[in-house]
Amino acid sequence: MNPSTIQQLTDLAIRFRDERDWRQFHNFKDMALSLSLEVAELCELMQWKNGKELNSHLATNRERAGEELSDILHWVLLIAHDLEIDLDDAFRRKLEANALKYPIDKSKGRSTKYTDL
Amino acid sequence: MNPSTIQQLTDLAIRFRDERDWRQFHNFKDMALSLSLEVAELCELMQWKNGKELNSHLATNRERAGEELSDILHWVLLIAHDLEIDLDDAFRRKLEANALKYPIDKSKGRSTKYTDL
Amino acid sequence: MNPSTIQQLTDLAIRFRDERDWRQFHNFKDMALSLSLEVAELCELMQWKNGKELNSHLATNRERAGEELSDILHWVLLIAHDLEIDLDDAFRRKLEANALKYPIDKSKGRSTKYTDL
Amino acid sequence: MNPSTIQQLTDLAIRFRDERDWRQFHNFKDMALSLSLEVAELCELMQWKNGKELNSHLATNRERAGEELSDILHWVLLIAHDLEIDLDDAFRRKLEANALKYPIDKSKGRSTKYTDL
Repeated sequence: MNPSTIQQLTDLAIRFRDERDWRQFHNFKDMALSLSLEVAELCELMQWKNGKELNSHLATNRERAGEELSDILHWVLLIAHDLEIDLDDAFRRKLEANALKYPIDKSKGRSTKYTDL
Repeated sequence: MNPSTIQQLTDLAIRFRDERDWRQFHNFKDMALSLSLEVAELCELMQWKNGKELNSHLATNRERAGEELSDILHWVLLIAHDLEIDLDDAFRRKLEANALKYPIDKSKGRSTKYTDL
Repeated sequence: MNPSTIQQLTDLAIRFRDERDWRQFHNFKDMALSLSLEVAELCELMQWKNGKELNSHLATNRERAGEELSDILHWVLLIAHDLEIDLDDAFRRKLEANALKYPIDKSKGRSTKYTDL
Repeated sequence: MNPSTIQQLTDLAIRFRDERDWRQFHNFKDMALSLSLEVAELCELMQWKNGKELNSHLATNRERAGEELSDILHWVLLIAHDLEIDLDDAFRRKLEANALKYPIDKSKGRSTKYTDL
């Protein structure tokens, strides 16, 4: 299979929703809440583990991590779609804005927030 | 510009990180924490507003919503990359698994969780 | 039983932890992560329900909501304890600070954030 | 000042709200959302810092950490109040339930989740 574009994955998510007539439930607040719950499920995989133990635990549970990341992506795509946001374009523009906030020469090897650079 | 694939956006995020030598800071727990903080910024846009007022507020702030969604996507791509997860493939497989959990005839027009179907 | 003070509930949570020798696991980041996961469990009770249906669902599940709120409070008390914060005092001072940020005459009946008052 | 009970702090939070006539905005979903946003602000204090650097950073920012914990407690108290939950009692009962889930002899010195004990 050829690699999917953001638009193609969005189309899949929308088709899945339309087939189930679920658009009616998708107000933005509940969608954002669902997004945050999926992030919590990803974080739960990391609870009480750190360093090498965490890395090893995640590698062992890669399949489940991939499912949680997919669920997160699913909501991101749906929210962007319903807000009529071109996520592909927004992502590229945000990266350009970040490049201005974090110039390479000032931020290289530093975790400092841009407001403190 | 042609539409971007998941892989192409991931490559952009990785190049951005490598140029700044930030890989050293990106342990999974802090990446997941950053992901959850970006979700909080998206949710903040929705605080205390509901119904038509919420929709109108988000439409007015579509640019900022797109930035927050891009930041969320950014962390999703990086975490998937570092876990060596093929997110494109994982997303398609998760959608297929969801289709089994939520058969169209049982779930059409219903917001019930699959465990209660 | 007499009503408990913040300090008394904190003492109970600390005794519970010490009996199990769990202090060793309680770095601040994992405690904060656990706190956020308990908040997610509370939010999960509210997913896809709104208005009267939400109120009725929460009333029916009051027992579980009380458990989630207790778990959230548990982490708040432990984090405050380990940071050597007098939460009782901090709470009262924060309320006074909020009273200055939201003067009654300017904020009465308005949900506007203080920066926009 | 004498130490405050949970009930006394709840009374303060309710009086603060009533003076501003804010009860009308406090549906449960937006209150839970606000709670989660305050948790995010606490977590933000911990971003990209770990080990001794994190502890030292939090000690330096103890005042702000106390404010965020107070804001979290504020929402916990209000949500419990509006759900007519006796949080004091619920907390004690949840601790007793946890003691059954995590018997001292099985859980001492172990971070294992109760379902895996």
